[in-house]
Amino acid sequence: MALDDSWYTEQWAEQGSAISLKIKRKLHDEQSAYQRIEIFETETFGRLMTLDGLVMVTDRDNFIYHEMMSHPALLTHPAPQRVLIIGGGDCGTLREVLKHATVERAEQVELDERVTRVAEQFFPELTEANNDPRARLHFADGIRWVAEAQAASYDVIIVDSTDPVGPAAGLFSEEFYRDCYRALRSPGIVVGQSESPLFHATLIRHMQENLRTAGFETVGTLHFPQCTYPSGWWSATMGGKGTDVARPRSAGRDSPPVTTRYYNADIHRAALALPQFMR
Amino acid sequence: MALDDSWYTEQWAEQGSAISLKIKRKLHDEQSAYQRIEIFETETFGRLMTLDGLVMVTDRDNFIYHEMMSHPALLTHPAPQRVLIIGGGDCGTLREVLKHATVERAEQVELDERVTRVAEQFFPELTEANNDPRARLHFADGIRWVAEAQAASYDVIIVDSTDPVGPAAGLFSEEFYRDCYRALRSPGIVVGQSESPLFHATLIRHMQENLRTAGFETVGTLHFPQCTYPSGWWSATMGGKGTDVARPRSAGRDSPPVTTRYYNADIHRAALALPQFMR
Repeated sequence: MALDDSWYTEQWAEQGSAISLKIKRKLHDEQSAYQRIEIFETETFGRLMTLDGLVMVTDRDNFIYHEMMSHPALLTHPAPQRVLIIGGGDCGTLREVLKHATVERAEQVELDERVTRVAEQFFPELTEANNDPRARLHFADGIRWVAEAQAASYDVIIVDSTDPVGPAAGLFSEEFYRDCYRALRSPGIVVGQSESPLFHATLIRHMQENLRTAGFETVGTLHFPQCTYPSGWWSATMGGKGTDVARPRSAGRDSPPVTTRYYNADIHRAALALPQFMR
Repeated sequence: MALDDSWYTEQWAEQGSAISLKIKRKLHDEQSAYQRIEIFETETFGRLMTLDGLVMVTDRDNFIYHEMMSHPALLTHPAPQRVLIIGGGDCGTLREVLKHATVERAEQVELDERVTRVAEQFFPELTEANNDPRARLHFADGIRWVAEAQAASYDVIIVDSTDPVGPAAGLFSEEFYRDCYRALRSPGIVVGQSESPLFHATLIRHMQENLRTAGFETVGTLHFPQCTYPSGWWSATMGGKGTDVARPRSAGRDSPPVTTRYYNADIHRAALALPQFMR
C-alpha cells in the first residue's frame, strides 16, 4: 500500500490527507532567497513545479486554475485595460490575461524572480506571453506595490498567491483589500485564489467579509476542480467596486471570446453556484 | 516525503497519481464472496470503506456523491414513484432517494450483501432509511435483474456502481442500457456514475454514445467535486426516455424540496455545464 521513492507526495497535514504523483526524474532543485524551487518530470502530469514542497503547477491540470483566475474577472469587467497580477510567478495567469484584446497593460508583481526564470526554462507554454509588449514583469513585494500604487490605476487586480501562511498571509487581509479598492478604478474587480471549499470554508467566509469591510460592494466565490490542489476542489473569490461580480458579461455567448480549454459562459455561471452547505 | 504505515493510500496506477488518508486504526477486514471489505477510522474523514483497496465512501465527503447520484434525476423526472438502484450497497443513495415524498418504492439490487451489512454496522447514518417501508433490499446480479425486469416498471434507474472493470463492466454497456430503456416507463431516467472528467473523458463519451444507441433521446453529464475519488472530480451521466435530462424541474426554486448539504437548483444547473474541452 505504501508508495516507494518514485512518488512525489504532498501532505495536507491538518486535513489528514495527501496527494502523490508518480515521478520519472527530478529536473531542477534550487534554494532561492525565498523558497526551495523543484521541478519534476512526472509519469502522467507532465512537468511539476513545487515551492517548499507544495504543488504549484503541473502541465496537465494548470489550465483550469489559470483560466478561472483570469477570465471570469476579465469577462465581468466591462472593458478591462489595466491589469495587475500579484504573485503568479509561473506566468500562466499572465498568459490568460493577455489573450484579452481590451488589455493594454498587464503588470505582474512576483516576489521571487527565480520562480519566473525557472518557469521560463521548464514551462515554455505558460511563459509564452512574457515578451508580449503589453506585459511588465516586476519582482517586488506585492503588498507594498498595491499600498504604494496610484489611486484608480487598475481595472482588475488578480491575487495569484500561495497559501495564506508566511509572506502570502497579508494578501488575505482587510488592509490589503482596502489598498486594492483604492488602487482600482470604478468599475473595478479584485480576485484572489481562496483555497478549498471542502477544507477551507471558514477562510473563504473571512475573505468575503474582509472584502466587504474593505469597501467592495459585491462579493462572489467561483468554484472549480483542481486535481493537484488539496481536496481536488478549489476556489477564487472576487470583490466588485462599482460592478456586480455575479453578472458575467459573457452570459449567453456560445463561445468564449478567448481560446480556452475549461472556461466558457456556462462554466462561468456554474462556478458561481453555491453548494447548499456554503449558503 | 514518503508516508509511513499510518496512511491508507489508493494508487490510480494508470493515472500516475494517488490519494492518501491518515488512519487512526482499522475497524474491520473481511473477504466476502466477491471482494475484500475494509473499514478504517481516519484522522479527518471519519470512517472509510474500501472494496479491494479502492475508496468507496468516507463519512466526510460522501454527501456530494450520493446527492448528485439521486436528486438531479429525481428532480428532473416529473413524478418519480418507482426507483431502482443497481449497486449502492452502502445505502447512501437509497437514503437520498427516500427523501422524496413522491417515491412509493425504492428497490436496491446489490451483488454483495456483506457490503450492506458492514455499512449497517459502521455507517449508521447512510443506512438509516433501510427500514423505511418503501425500501426493498435485494442481493442479486443487477445486470440480470434489469434484463428480467417487467417492461415499463420503473421511473428512475440509478446505477451506483464500482469502476467499469470486473463485474461492473457490464453496467456501462449498450446492452445494459437497452434493458434499462425497456424497464423504464416514459418519462423515465437512467443515471450512472461515470468516473472522472479529467481522467476518463473517453469513457464518458462512450457511455453517452451507448445511451443514445440504446434509445435514450436525451443524454447529459453532471460534474461535481469528490475529494476521495481519482482526480477529485467526478461525474454522473443521465439518459432520458421521453424526457429532457437538461431541464431540471427544480429550476428557479430557492430551496431544494429535500434536505441536502450540496445539492440545490443552482448546483443542479451548474453541474450540467460542460467545460470547453468536453464540448
